[in-house]
Amino acid sequence: MRKVAVIGVGCTSFGEKWETSFRNLFVEAGALALEDAGLSGEQIDEMFVGNMSAGRFVEQEHVGALIADYAGLATNHIPSTRVEAACASGGLAFRQAVTAVASGMADIVVAAGVEKMTDVGTGVSVDALAGAADREWEGFAGATFPGLYAMIATDYMHRYGLTREQLAGVAVKNHRNGAKNPRAQFRSEITVDTVINSSLVADPLRLFDCSPITDGAAAVIVAPLERAREFTDTPIRVLGSGQATDTISLHDRRDICTLDATMVAGERAFHAAGVERTQIDMIEVHDCFTIAELCAIEDLGFCAKGQAGILTEEGVTALDGDLPVNPSGGLKACGHPVGATGIKQIYEIITQLRGEATGRQIDGEIGMTHNVGGTGATVVCHILGV
Amino acid sequence: MRKVAVIGVGCTSFGEKWETSFRNLFVEAGALALEDAGLSGEQIDEMFVGNMSAGRFVEQEHVGALIADYAGLATNHIPSTRVEAACASGGLAFRQAVTAVASGMADIVVAAGVEKMTDVGTGVSVDALAGAADREWEGFAGATFPGLYAMIATDYMHRYGLTREQLAGVAVKNHRNGAKNPRAQFRSEITVDTVINSSLVADPLRLFDCSPITDGAAAVIVAPLERAREFTDTPIRVLGSGQATDTISLHDRRDICTLDATMVAGERAFHAAGVERTQIDMIEVHDCFTIAELCAIEDLGFCAKGQAGILTEEGVTALDGDLPVNPSGGLKACGHPVGATGIKQIYEIITQLRGEATGRQIDGEIGMTHNVGGTGATVVCHILGV
Repeated sequence: MRKVAVIGVGCTSFGEKWETSFRNLFVEAGALALEDAGLSGEQIDEMFVGNMSAGRFVEQEHVGALIADYAGLATNHIPSTRVEAACASGGLAFRQAVTAVASGMADIVVAAGVEKMTDVGTGVSVDALAGAADREWEGFAGATFPGLYAMIATDYMHRYGLTREQLAGVAVKNHRNGAKNPRAQFRSEITVDTVINSSLVADPLRLFDCSPITDGAAAVIVAPLERAREFTDTPIRVLGSGQATDTISLHDRRDICTLDATMVAGERAFHAAGVERTQIDMIEVHDCFTIAELCAIEDLGFCAKGQAGILTEEGVTALDGDLPVNPSGGLKACGHPVGATGIKQIYEIITQLRGEATGRQIDGEIGMTHNVGGTGATVVCHILGV
Repeated sequence: MRKVAVIGVGCTSFGEKWETSFRNLFVEAGALALEDAGLSGEQIDEMFVGNMSAGRFVEQEHVGALIADYAGLATNHIPSTRVEAACASGGLAFRQAVTAVASGMADIVVAAGVEKMTDVGTGVSVDALAGAADREWEGFAGATFPGLYAMIATDYMHRYGLTREQLAGVAVKNHRNGAKNPRAQFRSEITVDTVINSSLVADPLRLFDCSPITDGAAAVIVAPLERAREFTDTPIRVLGSGQATDTISLHDRRDICTLDATMVAGERAFHAAGVERTQIDMIEVHDCFTIAELCAIEDLGFCAKGQAGILTEEGVTALDGDLPVNPSGGLKACGHPVGATGIKQIYEIITQLRGEATGRQIDGEIGMTHNVGGTGATVVCHILGV
């Protein structure tokens, strides 16, 4: 297998982007990535697009071709493929791009993620998102994602003694980071009181425990490591990729507080990279809900089960802590355009490792991403290093 | 890149399968492929699933994980990824599986395709299918696929003098083949009169010019060529893969009768395989409408533009002709479960090359598939050989 590096990145601002269409969201992110790599469109060999549910959100399938066309890449007839695994779609698009370069089938490959969620009402978007769970055994029974993660949170608090305040600490920390990120949807700091006094969504999860509905797109460009310096002075190496599935229904798991797919995908990524956990300088994890960040930190093996709330309380996961988690603000504050999130995570780690994360810069040489579909039926992790 | 071979195949019967759910369609095809390769589920390393629009047809996204789970593969946490490019989704799933093996990231990989289209009414399914075209510039203007292909047919007949009877000949030939295929949705022979007297759908296309709404699934298993004989005495080599995009809207093309993406994808596949057109013994092409088969034969370079109707009339594309096209019955008679069609095409060619296509067997050593998304915004071709 050929070694692979990231040579360019681009990301739109995240938010309720009423003025920008689905297709133009991608065009903006793609143009930024091309500019960053100093490439023209004719130099692109192939593209992979992560998108969860454009069929429901904008009544559009065939997203790979649509986006290649509107980016001006159809004139070269480049292969363009959409990949989907709910909220892990972006991470999988990156993995496919890496595989294409590693195999030798392509040299310069775009991995993009895009979602336009605000063109439909909240009811439709909640129902579309429920398509990430088991429609027959969860969705038809009325289970939506806040409800499913509320069950995880309830069980977790009961078993590990996590306090309501500790859980709120995840949102407080991620809003503090998001306030420093010019692309974040929410740029206001909040307090523990903001969280615990916000409206109840699904007990014990309140509004500020939940990631928002977001429009946004991100794109990164990968190339063979041996060619990377043709395009950039700061190539970032893709050290390892790990992907895993689990049962789609939460009720079929051996333990609803532990995401086995996170454990396995993380282990596969560490193994592929030949990197120890102690070498990881920063992580972007999938905090679709506050509880999900705590599970992720533990299931990736950074602390024992039940300890991540205490780590958060002690500031270990803060920007200036020993293990900064979600420097971008995470899904919670940066926003969660579901198909784009996995690429935005890569974007953030690359920006950090290049030393370009002004205002939220972390010292470090190795970073990791953790992107989840559903309640953990798909997890994909990547380890990146200078 | 490692060389890749197909070591197992499975396919459900195609039709209106009221008694079988979306997930169980795949389980049936997957189990047949495993049995064919003499594999157990624990031996599978990774899976790619082609599916166009489960979000619209069965309100389910996250199809890769769902299907891995119901096939019993979640216990090993194998990576499972859905890929989508409208009706070319199956062909792209196969291409990703081949890339994964070629890269060395995985050894034994399943490529599957599945679509369950009959759980919604015709209006919903026609609208879901319109998501394969440009929703903003085609769908919102009322253009559906029969209408778009009718424009191609009208222009083609005007420019090349194709007769109504010659066009009907495609359907007659494909129904003749389908009648010999135990998995085909329609197993009755028809005449030119059947076609030209059937109800008008979009002038000049009539009911028997159009592929049907179908439920079905197919699965194939690929492995490194050097390991293939561990699993089968009749491995079939993947000689070449080619994929191309074009503008998503038909009105943006330089010529609506010629699918540039077919020309480019075909050329890429021939180049990768190092094979000449004269070496191809059989093709499965994407005959979503009768006119599409004629365009495909020409755009792949098997005859000059405007000549495919004459070839069909002369019997060249019949089972016993010099260039048999769509021995399975094609999308027209075998049926068109949109995400599964690309894998069914691979299934048919493998079955033929192994000499197992009882009743419709063609002598030959090299076959080709041609799978189209939309009106040709995505095309993917594969060349397979003994």
